[in-house]
Parts: sequence; C-alpha cells; structure tokens
Amino acid sequence: MFGIVKNEPKPGITWRNVAAAPAPGHGEVTIAVHKAGICGTDYHIFAWDRWSAARVPTPMVIGHECVGHIVATGPGVAHLHQGQRVSVECHIACGHCVHCRTGNTHICGNVRIIGIDRPGCFAEAVTVPAANVWPVPDSIPDRHAAVFDPIGNAMHAATSVPIAGQDVLIIGAGPIGLFAVAIARAHGARRVIVQEPHPYRAGIAQRLGADLVIDPNDADGAGQVLAATGGAGPATILEMSGNARALNDALDMARNGADVALLGLFASPVTIDLSKSVIMKGITLHGVTGRRMFETWYQVEAFVANHPDAIDLVVTHILPASEYDQGFALMGKGDCGKVVLDFASLDRIAA
Amino acid sequence: MFGIVKNEPKPGITWRNVAAAPAPGHGEVTIAVHKAGICGTDYHIFAWDRWSAARVPTPMVIGHECVGHIVATGPGVAHLHQGQRVSVECHIACGHCVHCRTGNTHICGNVRIIGIDRPGCFAEAVTVPAANVWPVPDSIPDRHAAVFDPIGNAMHAATSVPIAGQDVLIIGAGPIGLFAVAIARAHGARRVIVQEPHPYRAGIAQRLGADLVIDPNDADGAGQVLAATGGAGPATILEMSGNARALNDALDMARNGADVALLGLFASPVTIDLSKSVIMKGITLHGVTGRRMFETWYQVEAFVANHPDAIDLVVTHILPASEYDQGFALMGKGDCGKVVLDFASLDRIAA
Amino acid sequence: MFGIVKNEPKPGITWRNVAAAPAPGHGEVTIAVHKAGICGTDYHIFAWDRWSAARVPTPMVIGHECVGHIVATGPGVAHLHQGQRVSVECHIACGHCVHCRTGNTHICGNVRIIGIDRPGCFAEAVTVPAANVWPVPDSIPDRHAAVFDPIGNAMHAATSVPIAGQDVLIIGAGPIGLFAVAIARAHGARRVIVQEPHPYRAGIAQRLGADLVIDPNDADGAGQVLAATGGAGPATILEMSGNARALNDALDMARNGADVALLGLFASPVTIDLSKSVIMKGITLHGVTGRRMFETWYQVEAFVANHPDAIDLVVTHILPASEYDQGFALMGKGDCGKVVLDFASLDRIAA
Amino acid sequence: MFGIVKNEPKPGITWRNVAAAPAPGHGEVTIAVHKAGICGTDYHIFAWDRWSAARVPTPMVIGHECVGHIVATGPGVAHLHQGQRVSVECHIACGHCVHCRTGNTHICGNVRIIGIDRPGCFAEAVTVPAANVWPVPDSIPDRHAAVFDPIGNAMHAATSVPIAGQDVLIIGAGPIGLFAVAIARAHGARRVIVQEPHPYRAGIAQRLGADLVIDPNDADGAGQVLAATGGAGPATILEMSGNARALNDALDMARNGADVALLGLFASPVTIDLSKSVIMKGITLHGVTGRRMFETWYQVEAFVANHPDAIDLVVTHILPASEYDQGFALMGKGDCGKVVLDFASLDRIAA
Repeated sequence: MFGIVKNEPKPGITWRNVAAAPAPGHGEVTIAVHKAGICGTDYHIFAWDRWSAARVPTPMVIGHECVGHIVATGPGVAHLHQGQRVSVECHIACGHCVHCRTGNTHICGNVRIIGIDRPGCFAEAVTVPAANVWPVPDSIPDRHAAVFDPIGNAMHAATSVPIAGQDVLIIGAGPIGLFAVAIARAHGARRVIVQEPHPYRAGIAQRLGADLVIDPNDADGAGQVLAATGGAGPATILEMSGNARALNDALDMARNGADVALLGLFASPVTIDLSKSVIMKGITLHGVTGRRMFETWYQVEAFVANHPDAIDLVVTHILPASEYDQGFALMGKGDCGKVVLDFASLDRIAA
Repeated sequence: MFGIVKNEPKPGITWRNVAAAPAPGHGEVTIAVHKAGICGTDYHIFAWDRWSAARVPTPMVIGHECVGHIVATGPGVAHLHQGQRVSVECHIACGHCVHCRTGNTHICGNVRIIGIDRPGCFAEAVTVPAANVWPVPDSIPDRHAAVFDPIGNAMHAATSVPIAGQDVLIIGAGPIGLFAVAIARAHGARRVIVQEPHPYRAGIAQRLGADLVIDPNDADGAGQVLAATGGAGPATILEMSGNARALNDALDMARNGADVALLGLFASPVTIDLSKSVIMKGITLHGVTGRRMFETWYQVEAFVANHPDAIDLVVTHILPASEYDQGFALMGKGDCGKVVLDFASLDRIAA
Repeated sequence: MFGIVKNEPKPGITWRNVAAAPAPGHGEVTIAVHKAGICGTDYHIFAWDRWSAARVPTPMVIGHECVGHIVATGPGVAHLHQGQRVSVECHIACGHCVHCRTGNTHICGNVRIIGIDRPGCFAEAVTVPAANVWPVPDSIPDRHAAVFDPIGNAMHAATSVPIAGQDVLIIGAGPIGLFAVAIARAHGARRVIVQEPHPYRAGIAQRLGADLVIDPNDADGAGQVLAATGGAGPATILEMSGNARALNDALDMARNGADVALLGLFASPVTIDLSKSVIMKGITLHGVTGRRMFETWYQVEAFVANHPDAIDLVVTHILPASEYDQGFALMGKGDCGKVVLDFASLDRIAA
Repeated sequence: MFGIVKNEPKPGITWRNVAAAPAPGHGEVTIAVHKAGICGTDYHIFAWDRWSAARVPTPMVIGHECVGHIVATGPGVAHLHQGQRVSVECHIACGHCVHCRTGNTHICGNVRIIGIDRPGCFAEAVTVPAANVWPVPDSIPDRHAAVFDPIGNAMHAATSVPIAGQDVLIIGAGPIGLFAVAIARAHGARRVIVQEPHPYRAGIAQRLGADLVIDPNDADGAGQVLAATGGAGPATILEMSGNARALNDALDMARNGADVALLGLFASPVTIDLSKSVIMKGITLHGVTGRRMFETWYQVEAFVANHPDAIDLVVTHILPASEYDQGFALMGKGDCGKVVLDFASLDRIAA
C-alpha cells in the first residue's frame, strides 16, 4: 500500500509503497484510512528536530489523527464490525500500570504512540487495538472525525480548568488553540481572549467568536487584556504556544487564584518567578497531555455534533494525500488552520 | 506597653516600650497576648532581606502568630466577649474584592497583614478585626493555640492535594514542613518521605513517624525515594523548602499525574523543564499561600485536638518574650522546631 | 411609602402605605426599588400555604428579588455610593457560624430572608446589609437585573452538576427551570431535554433551544428521552418541579453515575427506591438551596451579559407595581414565564 | 474439586464435589483459593431472599471475596505469572460501555459478578479475567488479602465524602461499617461516631477507636451525637445499615451541607422529607456501589499495610471451609465481625 514515511534520520518525508498493514491480532482491528490530520508533531518529525531524532525509529509510517472504516477485526473483537466508521486514539496504553488501573491511561508510563513508535495512519490502512477505536456516528462527516484527536487535546485542556462564566485567555491560535477558542465559547466563558501573532490564525479566532484577539507584539497587549476583564485579569489561561515569554506575561496578568492549563510544549526549560507569579497568587498550573480515554472523546463528539460550523472554520485545507508536501509547507508558514489529508481518494485512484 | 519592634530599616530588632494597642474600633477586638510563635517571615524582617526592605515600614511591632484573651470589644461585636481565649488569623482581607466575595479571602488582592503592614502581636496586646479571631477551646493549651497559623499553612498545603493512601514527599522540615509530616501521617498517607539536611529537624521528622528521612546531599536520595514508593515515585509532593534544585529533583522523581503543593518561597526565579517534568507527566503545581478562612482553621483545630503529642514534638522551645534574641538565634542556626515566645509571663513581671 | 403587604395571616395581599424603609444602620444601605420579580415563594405567601403560615409574621412587606439604586449608605460603607445601581441577595447570613466561616453562607444556620423574616422589596425602598448588595453594570437593563436572584437559583443548581458535554434533563419549566434551560445550553450541554406539562412554558423552553420538550403526561415520555440520549438516559438531571413522580421517573431513566440537582421543593415527603434507583446506579443527589454568595452572582452576571435574548424570552411580563394582582393571577394560571413588577414608574407617578 | 454450592432455588447451601474450574481462556487466569470471606450477599443467597431468587441461577458456586495463587494463565496474559499470590475484584465489567470507557467500570451497565452470575470462589479454584486480579505483596497475610473486597466497599464510601477533619457518623457496624470506622480514624476524622445495636459489634467499634458508640434504641442517641459534635451535628455520614429510620434520623442530625454516602441496601423504598432534610440543608446523597477499579484497591492496600491490627480486630473468625455452616450461623446471629473460610487447609487434607 501507499504511505507517507520518515525514511531516514534526516529532514523530509517520502510518499512510497510500504508493507501492508499487518492482519489484526487478538483484540486488534485494521482500518482503511479515509482522512488524516497533520499534527504539529508530524511537522516536527518532518523537520527532524531534536525530539524526533531521539524518539522516532526509521523507517516509520507517520500520522496519528484519522478516520476510516474497519476492514478486518482480530479474534476477541465482538463489539466492533467490518465496515464500521471509526476514529482512533493514538496513545496505546499498557493496561497494567498504576495509571492504566486508575482510569488515567493518558499518562500510562509505558505508552506507545502510532506514527511515532509503531506504524501510523498516513497510509491506506493502519492496524490498532480495538480499545483505541472510537465509533463515529453517521451525522459527523469524515473531515470532522479525522481531527477528533487534536480537538481532544483542546478539550482535555479546557476541561481541566474552569470555563463557564470565566474570563479565559488562550495563548496561541494554532489548530489546537483555535479548537480551544470554539470550546471556551461553547462551554460558557464570559470573555474569550486570544493571543496570536499570525494574522491568518488571528482572523479565524475572530470568526470563532473571540471577544478580543491581541498580537503579543502589541506593546499594550496586557492593558487590553486587563480592560477586557474589568481590570481583574484572566481567571483561566490555556497555554497552547510553548512560548516562555507569553507564559510569564500571562502569569503576570492572571488574577489571584487563576488556573493555567499547560498544553503547548516548550523547546527548552522555562524560568518562572514562582514566588511572585504562582505561590503568592495562589495559582494552579495543570500539565495536560493527550486525551482522557475516553471521557474526552465523549466530550469531543458532543461538541463537534453541536458546533459543526466551528470545526469547518478551523479545518481550512483538505488535500489529496499525495499532495502532502503542500500541506506540510502550509503548516511551516502558518497560513492555515488544520490541514487534513484525504486518503479515500487514493482508493478511488487505486481502484 | 512592651513590644518587639523593627525600629529602623536595617538588620536587627528591638525590645522596647511602644504605644499601647489602640482601642478597638467598630468590629474590632483588643487581645492581651499570651504566647506568639516566631515565623520564618519574622526572621526575614529581623535579617532585613530584600523582601522586607521593600514591604515593611518602620517602626513596626512585628509578629503575627499568637494566642491571647480578649480585653476589649469594639461596637458591633456581639458574638465575642471579654476574657475569651482566641488565636488570630493574620491576613486582614478587604471583604469587597472578587476573591473575598467568593470564599477565597486568603488571596484577597488588598490584604493587609499584622506585624507587616500594621502593628503585630509581639507585644503585650494587639488590636485586630473580630472577623480574624478564632476562639480556642479550653482543651487546647496556649503553646498549641499560638501556632495555629503555621499549622494552618501546612494544613492548607496538605488539603490542596491528595494525601490519604498516597506516597507523600515533603521537601524541607522546618516548622511548617514538620507540621506537614504530622498531618500527612494523620490523614492516612501510605508513605511519608521527608527530605531535610539539618540533623536536628530530620530527627523530629523521624519521631513524628516519617517512613524515610533523606539528606538531600545524599547521592542516593532519589534511589531511596523510588525504593520506598515501589519504584513509582511520589504521587504527592509538599514543597516547603524554597529550594529550586530540590523542586526539580522532586519533579524528576514524581510519578505521572502527581500533585505538587508549592508553599516554600523561592528567593529567585526557578528554571523548570516544563515539557518533560510537568506537561508530558500530567503533573499539577498548586501555588499555596496563607490559610483558607476559616476552613483551614477548623481542620487545624481538629488535628491539634487529636494529635497534641505531635505538636509538642514540633514546638521545641518556649522562651520568655524578653529572650527573643535567643529565639531568633536558634532559628538562624536551625537547631529548633517551632520557637514560641511567652508574653504572659511579662504580665506577671509587670504586675 | 407604598408597599405590597401580607397584612393578616390569611390568603391575599394588600397594596398600601407602609412605614418608610429605616435609615441604614452600620454596614447597611437603603435602596430605591426600580423593579422586582415575583417569586414562587411570594405566591405561596399570597396563597398562605402551610409553610407561609408557619414562617411569615404579619404584617410583612413581601418580595425579595429586585434592582434599584442606593439612596443612602450607613456608617462603615465605603465601597458603595449613593446613586449606584444594585441588585440584592435576599439571604442575610449571620457571619459567625461554621457555614459562614467556610464560604458557605448560603446554608447559614441563622439566615434571615428579606420579604419573609424582615421587610422585603415590594415597596418603594428597602434597607439591607451592604454585604448583600450586588452592583449592576450599566450594560445590564433593570428588567434583567431584577431577576438575578432566580437566575442564581438556576445557576447554583446547574453549577452543582456536570453540564458541558452532558445529556441534561430539566424537570419543570417554571421561571427557574426556564433559566436553567438557557444556562444548560450556554454551558455546553450535549442535549437539553425538558419535561413540562404547561404548553405556554413548554413553548418558551422550545424557543430557548431545548432539543426535546416532553409532556410528563405523554405515555411515551421515557422512550423519547432514551431515544434523545442514544439509549443511555440523562447523565445530569435538574429537578425544578417538586413533583415526586417526576423525580422517580427521572431516576429510572437516569444513566448509572448520574448527578441530580434537587432544587424544586416537595410539598410532602418523597418515597424513593434508594437501593435500585440511587445506590446500585451510583447516582448522586445534590440538595441545592439559594445562591452561593457571591460566586453564583458572578456566574449569573456573565451569563446575563452574554445571553440577553434568553432572559427576555423568560421575562414575559413587566407590570406596573400597582397591577400586582394581575401578576399573581398570571402565576396562578401558569400563563407566564417570569413576572416583574415595576416600582420605578411609581416614583414618576408620585413625582 | 470441592465447592460451596447453591444447589436449588430454596434456602440452604451445599458442600459438594463440583466441576473443576475451567482452563483459563484468552486473558484469563485460574486461581487456587486460599481464603475467602463470607459477604452479607452470600448470606442473602444462603437464605434465598427475594433478590437472590430473582438474580442467581442454580446450581451456582457462590463466594466472591478471596485470596489465592495463580495456577494457570491463559493466552495474552504476560504481566501475571503462575504462583503469584492475588486477590480478586468480583465485578467483571464489559469494557465497552460509556462507564467502562470513562474510568467508571464499577457502574458498568453489563457487569457480571462472580459467585452470582458465574462460578464463585467458595471452591478449590476459580477462573477469572486477568484484569480482575490484584497482586498481593508478601507483607500482607492471606487473612487480610481475603477481605480486600469488603474493605474496598468501605473505602469507596469513605473516599466519596470528606473525612479528614470532619465529624463522621457511621450507621451500622457490620463488617463493612467496622472497616469504615478504622478508615475514618486512619484518614483523620475529627470525631468518629458509630450507631450499632448489637453489643458484639459495638464493642469492636470501640476497640477500633470510635469516639462514641450509640445504640439506636437509646432515646438520647441524637442528643449524644449533637454533644459529641459541639452541637453542630455530623458533617459526614456513612450509611451502612440499610435502615430507613436510621437514615432519616441521621439526616435530621446532619449539619447543613453534609455529605451522606449511601452503601447499605434498603429492603424496600425509603420515604424522605427531601425539602426539609436534603434541599433546604444543602445536603448531598452519594449512592455508592462496588469499588472503583482499581483506585479503591490501591487505597485499600495502603490502608491494610499501615493498619494490620485494625483488620485483625474486624476479622473475628477464620474457619476451615468445611465448617462453612458455622460461619453462616455466626453471621445470622451477628456475633462476629468478618468471617473468613480457609480453603488452603483443604488442599492439605486432599494432599
């Protein structure tokens, strides 16, 4: 079959013939991929940053956000059936560690991730544990179901902190930040304030209903945030940029007792005046990773079903999978929201 | 009356005659001080560190942890009476800000603290709002009631994170850390592990029932902590040292999903590998300041009433107030737990 | 001044001249009433049911939901000023009991309620503690600010249970139930299902965006609820009817682990199959009373500011205060949402 | 092999030869039973009450609380090994329903229970899913590991409500109630008050450190509870009796805002004055069933390891399995705490 592959330990990716997805083992299913989203992580692997070089073996079919239909079920899989349309949670948990045994599989100490540790979904088919599968209702189109995973990141962050009735600051309007804007709005935030330098993405945030979108380079940004929050500063902060200065500025603006969800990854250690900015203010910093399995997925499905227009504002590009290079280029420039690759058209080409 | 005074903006304190405590205004009471605890903050003011120099006006009667009896009640104080024995919450909240109006007076944005912003309790008497008073039951002796405030810091931290059934690491066994050891034990921790370099304080931690007390300078500290937690690392961390290296080491040891209460103040900004140590591990950092008014005080009273022996292990010195210099010297060396000054004996001397 | 008075211990109310509101004492303010909402409790006092007869002394100016402006401030009130437009929390807490001292003034054991235990707001003016006052921003009109109290009941119930992403069943679409419909929608419920027999109120629920409105007398009600929730039953239930059969039916439909907020008062004890309907299902029943002071009020203000159209759908009638009898008649028939009385026009008449 | 069997749909049980435990299928293990606890549910099946008659097919090997060692592992079980000593969670969850997918397997809608729906552990061996197995550390003896399940019921209830610093009332001192007494003490309750009519069990509660043990038939019971709680009434109630009158009395005594865990099953529907006893008081009723898998088990293991003496006070009888009739007779009379049957001695007899 065709797949998008990290072939060698250096920058770049390749579109080529790869070994077919293995037949499903006990408790596994094989999925024919319809559509798959390009994640920032995919871009890091494409660019071959330090993290990728240390983590990803080559060759590796990448990609971990997708929707498709089940083409084969392994032994012991009675609750799913061939032809069923599904999305996939990419974190494969061990099932035996303290986290897995207490409903916290998202922080499993032995996690393996598809498209990173084992073959991913940027291919005609992928084989995964049945436990990782999320059946998708007919009413949700493929272009939405393909991005349940990143909506899930935004949802996990947003549900880790108070939103209803709160003044919410979202730092960074990449695809996950944009989904978070829509979620904060949908879950009853008082004010949704977004900090984003890229005009394309700032514009999407506006259309999603943000009350205020500021450019972090604007000298008066903090003043605008304080004005929009009646002088009190934000009570809830969703950090989705991985920008250390932005985090520190936000902690300065935050009101006492604020909750900060940390989702964006920082390329290097961050220096924080803990005494002044966290302890004396009674602030809580919540490290957020992955998605709660599968509480987050239920929340995502409810949100997507009720707000399809918002998802369509964030999914700005749907490209044939064979044009993946254009998708990665868009992501490099930031002139996009979420980019989705279409593998279903492949089948038709193949057929 | 006599008082212990920061006289001038330089190191040192003075024992001298000061103006009598003012008559109580509307909603205030005046308290004759029996006993008062020396806090680390008092030591900072004594040593005149950067924080003190920026915050504390002089001259100022210092001290903010005490027990005494009410000698006068102002107008509008119907629920307290002369002669009533009371302890005092030292944070005077404004009552009108968003925090005060939502049950979070401990993070009032307009807080004023006795012994820092207005005359304190290292004196024969102190005048405070009736709302800051905590009536003390007869069964609790003065030497315990004098230190409800620092026990409250430990209690606030300990009740901000899971304790029952958890492996708890307490960093720093100063008086508040020691109270936290006793609370973690009393609230059902699985393992209580303490990190403290000073042998005197490490010894008290042992006697309070810590399962393991390690010297942070011990090369194998992390190994011992992992062994004591079955290889998983602590799930709950109470940071009470203000030591940046210790915090980072603890984050390394912490199990995924751990909760960290930050109470100790750091003298300078702290550099943390947020991606690796907090975000990817799904860890939560809780900034903790003051005491919840007055939920924490109820919890403290219950704890003190049920565990008087533990309090006596931590309160290592009770000195006549006139020997305050010896108390501060002990704190400088660390050869003590909690040091309490006795002002009641003064009355007798005066009489 | 004029006031609406429960004159004698028997059904009916009177519009008459009453003693002027007392001058504000220490910590009090006097408010000139603009508008006031008629609560179900007012109707009970009007009808003189068993509860009223046991609780309310006569004569008594009734009414406890209002907006107005401050005409006088007593000593010790520095943070409010004459002319300021305010709404009022009607529960006057003692400030000294365990609930008041732990941020739970709404369950104060010594609570006194305006319009029930002391003169209320169905009058030209009312005197209340400054602590009970809620300043209203200019952007919120009187007709909305007058009903912050009942919106607060709905908000308190809705914030006691999970809403975002959940299937929510609301039993009873009186004014509080209707506000709850709008809140559940605004806070991200997956499905909002309403059970209400009265067509007028069912119609408002529809216009507020309920996904399904069922008549409890419809034989297939449970089937419709199950269908709307994908067969699982509601996960969150807001009981606002005080109807025992409806509660039991809802417990039967509820999915395991459901949360039920109980706000509607039941006229007599209720028989529940606790083993089958609560314990074996792992369900939680939350008794909800009043409003959290003042967390609920912040949430209400945010909601009202963002959803003015919803409030206008629920406030169906604004009558001159002198036509109060028509307002009570409407409530008796149920042909209304919220009924608001206008006392400001009185001033003009008087002037 | 030998087993204790409900042979026919009528009162009584039989000790007889039964078919050997089936060889473990995929993901299953077979366990040689060492010791097993007799649960109240076993007694109900023995007595053949209405619930048993409707639920339990015959013949059925009963029993669901046990410890033993693994004698065989099925395919796909890599993390457990032969010879490993284990206890067993008796609820077998489906893994696919909304509850199983959100970390709430204890309320799985398709649960099957060993000893009720499929062969139980009152036998020489039992086959169960590997996911239901709890490895037991060497330091915990069989007589403690055999009763992790009922300790887990007590732990689940106790961890559903606030304990540390609270006045806790425990209604009913059967084995689970007694374990709850020890847990409340270990988790830092301020006062532990127990209501139990049977002198034998009341005596054990005393020895476990209850502050007050009252006989529900004592006319002054409520007065004693109020006195022991400083007039406020209990803030936390653990209902473990299934006695409707006791529950209503407790709701009357409870302070406003109290939390009530409902674990004891009521034989018939219960009538509660919801308005007065729950809603106006702001009380929360938590239905509690089973054990959280496996959060509760971690908590139980920590508790048992730290409080072995408490467990030995509750486990009053260990009988050879062949003397099961004496065990059931003891339970019928109430002259016991927990009764444990020893199946290991059987092996020796057999050998």
